[in-house]
Amino acid sequence: MTEKLSDTGRETTLNPLLDAGWSHDESRDAIRKTYKFADFVEAVGFMTRAAIWAEKWNHHPEWSNVYNRVDVTLTTHDVNGLSALDVKLARKMDVLAAHD
Amino acid sequence: MTEKLSDTGRETTLNPLLDAGWSHDESRDAIRKTYKFADFVEAVGFMTRAAIWAEKWNHHPEWSNVYNRVDVTLTTHDVNGLSALDVKLARKMDVLAAHD
Repeated sequence: MTEKLSDTGRETTLNPLLDAGWSHDESRDAIRKTYKFADFVEAVGFMTRAAIWAEKWNHHPEWSNVYNRVDVTLTTHDVNGLSALDVKLARKMDVLAAHD
Repeated sequence: MTEKLSDTGRETTLNPLLDAGWSHDESRDAIRKTYKFADFVEAVGFMTRAAIWAEKWNHHPEWSNVYNRVDVTLTTHDVNGLSALDVKLARKMDVLAAHD
C-alpha cells in the first residue's frame, strides 16, 4: 500500500529534494520543479524518458512544456499528498535531467 | 515570413478547427484544445509524435499532460497571434490524435 510520507520520511527524503531545486506546495502537499533544457528536443527527450519510468511505476506526473522548459508537479492522489513514490520519481527525473 | 492570419484566412482555416473542438482564446489570439486518450501511454505517445512535427516545422506548442489528458495551446509569438503555422500544427495534431 502507498502511504502518505511520515514526518520522519519528510525529513530524510524531502529535504534533499528541496535542496535540489524542488519546492513544496503546502496547499496541495505536492512538490514542483521547473527544468530548463538547451532546446525543445532536449525537453521532450527528458519527458519521454521520464514517462517510461512513470508508467513502469504506475505513478504519473502533472507536467507542462513550453519550448525548452518543463514544469513538473508530483503528488499522490490516492493518499491526498506526498508518498514515497513522489520522492522516487523526483529523484529519477533529476538523474534523467542531469544527463542532458 | 510568418504573418498573422488575415480575416479571410480565419474564415477559411480557423472555422473548421473550431468545429473540430478547438476554441479561440481572444485575449491571446491563441487556439486551445483538450485531447483525452485511453491512458497515459497513449497521451505521451501522441505528444512524442506531435513533438517531431513541431520541431520539423520549428513551431512549438504550449502543452500540459495529466494522465490521459493533453491540453494544447497554439499561437505564434513572432506575430503576437495566430498564423498559418498554428493551423497547420493543429490539423496535424488532430490527425495524430485520431490514430490512437
